[in-house]
Amino acid sequence: MKLVLIGFGNVGQGFVEILRDKGAELQARYDFAPQIVGVATRSRGTLLHPDGLDPAALLEAIAAGHLSRYPDAPGLQRDLDSLALIRASGADVLLEAGPTNLQTAQPALEYCYAALDAGMHLVLANKGPVAVALADLRARAAEVGKDVLFEATVMAGTPSLRLAQQALAGCTISEARGILNGTTNYILTQMENGLSYGDALLQAQALGYAETDPTADVDGWDAAGKALILASALFERSFALEDLVVEGIRKLTPDDIDSARAVGECWKLIARVTPEGGFVRPQRIATHHPLAAVSGATNAITFTTDLLGEVTLVGPGAGRKETGFALLADLLDLKRKQTNV
Amino acid sequence: MKLVLIGFGNVGQGFVEILRDKGAELQARYDFAPQIVGVATRSRGTLLHPDGLDPAALLEAIAAGHLSRYPDAPGLQRDLDSLALIRASGADVLLEAGPTNLQTAQPALEYCYAALDAGMHLVLANKGPVAVALADLRARAAEVGKDVLFEATVMAGTPSLRLAQQALAGCTISEARGILNGTTNYILTQMENGLSYGDALLQAQALGYAETDPTADVDGWDAAGKALILASALFERSFALEDLVVEGIRKLTPDDIDSARAVGECWKLIARVTPEGGFVRPQRIATHHPLAAVSGATNAITFTTDLLGEVTLVGPGAGRKETGFALLADLLDLKRKQTNV
Repeated sequence: MKLVLIGFGNVGQGFVEILRDKGAELQARYDFAPQIVGVATRSRGTLLHPDGLDPAALLEAIAAGHLSRYPDAPGLQRDLDSLALIRASGADVLLEAGPTNLQTAQPALEYCYAALDAGMHLVLANKGPVAVALADLRARAAEVGKDVLFEATVMAGTPSLRLAQQALAGCTISEARGILNGTTNYILTQMENGLSYGDALLQAQALGYAETDPTADVDGWDAAGKALILASALFERSFALEDLVVEGIRKLTPDDIDSARAVGECWKLIARVTPEGGFVRPQRIATHHPLAAVSGATNAITFTTDLLGEVTLVGPGAGRKETGFALLADLLDLKRKQTNV
Repeated sequence: MKLVLIGFGNVGQGFVEILRDKGAELQARYDFAPQIVGVATRSRGTLLHPDGLDPAALLEAIAAGHLSRYPDAPGLQRDLDSLALIRASGADVLLEAGPTNLQTAQPALEYCYAALDAGMHLVLANKGPVAVALADLRARAAEVGKDVLFEATVMAGTPSLRLAQQALAGCTISEARGILNGTTNYILTQMENGLSYGDALLQAQALGYAETDPTADVDGWDAAGKALILASALFERSFALEDLVVEGIRKLTPDDIDSARAVGECWKLIARVTPEGGFVRPQRIATHHPLAAVSGATNAITFTTDLLGEVTLVGPGAGRKETGFALLADLLDLKRKQTNV
């Protein structure tokens, strides 16, 4: 299985680290030995080699600041632009781990279409193309017999989509609600521990959980993007951001926290989707519900089903290796299908 | 896909109810239309029809007390013994939902071997054959190219095995620990609410969660059987009950509950397995851990992995429809593999 990787930041590097560190184990356990034939970054160069690039050398080059530090080799092509690289790669799968744009999804969306035209499967860590154009991507992929997988976009590598779509197959899911943003959950957890919203935010920024401009997290937009993807994955229709009512956590006060606690409840930023639409907003959760025990940067989703009632999955919602694993999991899924064909 | 069902108690009936109620949906969504060709009970008759038995009529007959109440039809055979029925059925899959014997696994084990000899897949709700003879069943199944699936045996239909074996494929699981017995978790939850052990047990018995002789639950043996299965499924070696240290909840007092609560912890009957062995015993869990929020008859497992850290699954651990769904999920898995072949 030949791979071309667009974006070589945290997620892309996390994935390549897994291949470097667990390559032998993956081959032994799953007979899985993928080859990275191309890597493209926006400003740190691109590399293409039809016989495959070395994971360890890729990581050393990027750690040194630029893919130009990758050692020369016969047949190696440098600095093709991303589209040309995708088209020339002969890869079986496009891994899109570039920066997210939830409005236009570009330039990732263009890369996806180029990859489908070239007969590749799509494995996406980038939320943009999934949130903006999933239905269209799926339709075009179906025409050429390819798959569109995107486990990385919700709860990082915690297999929330795979649980819903595969392990719960046979159940009808009527609702999913959960904690999809680790930064705000960390802030709310610290507010439970006595901090003000402002101090908790400063702490989250100091730890690298929150950006200098925390809007995307604290106003609910990151969670909304994931909720949109979750809804489209679960309910087999298209959703747009306009289908969601979105409210963040800025207005929550220590008094709100205290009055909830007094009646055995705690505040969580809850994303909820049903076939009709959904919301992202702070809600009070009873402390005996599994979502109430989800603290810090952890994420969770409770699926409401006809045959099992509520099923809750709790796990990491971010992280380099944790998100890199999602790409691996999608690839193993493609491999399993190929093997069975 | 032709099925023969051994055991027509709660789980078997739950499964047949799902086929009765969701048959059209399963056909439309998954192109899945299984046929029950045989049903065997210990004392309420057996039925075999090569063209299939009607789910609604089966449920009416058993509700009326005996399969002799199933309407006559040309080609219908009544009251074959179970082994003869399995051999004559021409089925593709044996569903074993008879009573559990964790010592000998009989008579279910004999049925499993007969089914494998006849070229059937095994789908087991019965813990006995899995706990006692999984390695041997798998070896014999592999010889004839068949599968042995047993999602129902741990956490009912909550897809704990499927999560670990499929959705987490690519991760290495080093440990699983969780709450695998709903009865004891209900008792402990009621003790948190102020009841004594004795009163909580009486309440569990009144609600039908606990048997008149509660030994299997409160002394940890039910959880131990499931832990054994979980260990064998996760770690690809054979485990026996002797590999587990088993202790129940009888000795826990309201004082124990109170002193745990005073430091932000609560008692749970925890089953823990690693590649080396495991235990079932009461443990104190910090209230901010997802397992602490698992109350009443709900079950949960936390998997510790190399790439994702801790991933926790929470869901029902018992119930007619809930366990019946596990059989459906295993069958859909077989169907998916067949379709891809």
